[in-house]
Amino acid sequence: MSTAMAQFVRRIPEGEDRERLTCNDCGFVAYENPKIVVGSVVAVQGRILLCRRAIEPRRGFWTIPAGYMELGETVEEGALREAREEACADLRLDGVLAIYSIARIGQVQILFRASLATPHFAPGPESLEVRLFDWAEIPWDELAFPSVHWVLQHWREAGEGPLGVPRGNPPADLRGTTPLPPSAAEAAA
Amino acid sequence: MSTAMAQFVRRIPEGEDRERLTCNDCGFVAYENPKIVVGSVVAVQGRILLCRRAIEPRRGFWTIPAGYMELGETVEEGALREAREEACADLRLDGVLAIYSIARIGQVQILFRASLATPHFAPGPESLEVRLFDWAEIPWDELAFPSVHWVLQHWREAGEGPLGVPRGNPPADLRGTTPLPPSAAEAAA
Repeated sequence: MSTAMAQFVRRIPEGEDRERLTCNDCGFVAYENPKIVVGSVVAVQGRILLCRRAIEPRRGFWTIPAGYMELGETVEEGALREAREEACADLRLDGVLAIYSIARIGQVQILFRASLATPHFAPGPESLEVRLFDWAEIPWDELAFPSVHWVLQHWREAGEGPLGVPRGNPPADLRGTTPLPPSAAEAAA
Repeated sequence: MSTAMAQFVRRIPEGEDRERLTCNDCGFVAYENPKIVVGSVVAVQGRILLCRRAIEPRRGFWTIPAGYMELGETVEEGALREAREEACADLRLDGVLAIYSIARIGQVQILFRASLATPHFAPGPESLEVRLFDWAEIPWDELAFPSVHWVLQHWREAGEGPLGVPRGNPPADLRGTTPLPPSAAEAAA
């Protein structure tokens, strides 16, 4: 996949108040807005389903089934699709558990509390491994992203009762601007 | 603002499973994901703040202060910015009232319940008029978008108590695919 962008420049289009990515040749404005990640904390009798990533970034680290929402789907449909793709799992969504803003990378994460609609799961093409973890077994040092830490803690705090208002970013990173920790490979380099 | 797109074509990039908008010249892939609209139902002693749109689409119709989230901001910052831009108002956000998917146009709306942090408001450049409406005065036939109907009803149902889990699309339009009603001008044409 080519990512050459030689002809795109940042300039302020007529009638706007900020720079936009614009093609110097044809004038096409590629609006860059935050992207939505949809995903789920899936629990099975108190154990949590995690996927070990087969792709970068953070290959080899554990995450919840989640990914970029696509055009033409709803947030719920996106969360269900991601669980099918990454964990071959059919979910039953319970409600929105958390909404996080990751301003550093222009992401909004809408994360559900969910259960398995059928007992089956298996690694999809983007996962090396999918398994259930007891709370005490969760590999905290091998989680892929800060928001995976956040949402697991928020899931734990919510317990099994009604969800209430969605949790937001933790006070220590209200805007989602803390850089990602180095991967094991980066740290060793 | 030019929107010529002559050199962009839809094709499936290597390693992907669906068509993406791709520049034939340089290979740049303009990923098109759903865009996030952030906004607020602002109440002042039970009266609701609405803005009459000065811009298309739906110029002349009433809406809540809301608009596209920008890169580098959080959902909360985006909702506050939109209220400043459209209603010259400083808000205090109370929590997420609703999350709607409008699959027809690739939008996700994250809408807050809010109050005025200071008593001032006035039309911004994108509004013809900004005013407070008693519930009985709300101009239902002159609201700009179906989701404005939805969120006002959801605001009314929520009352003044704790917000609980965010409301979603109403059962009659679960995917947000119902076309927009024609504007007065279109209906007359």
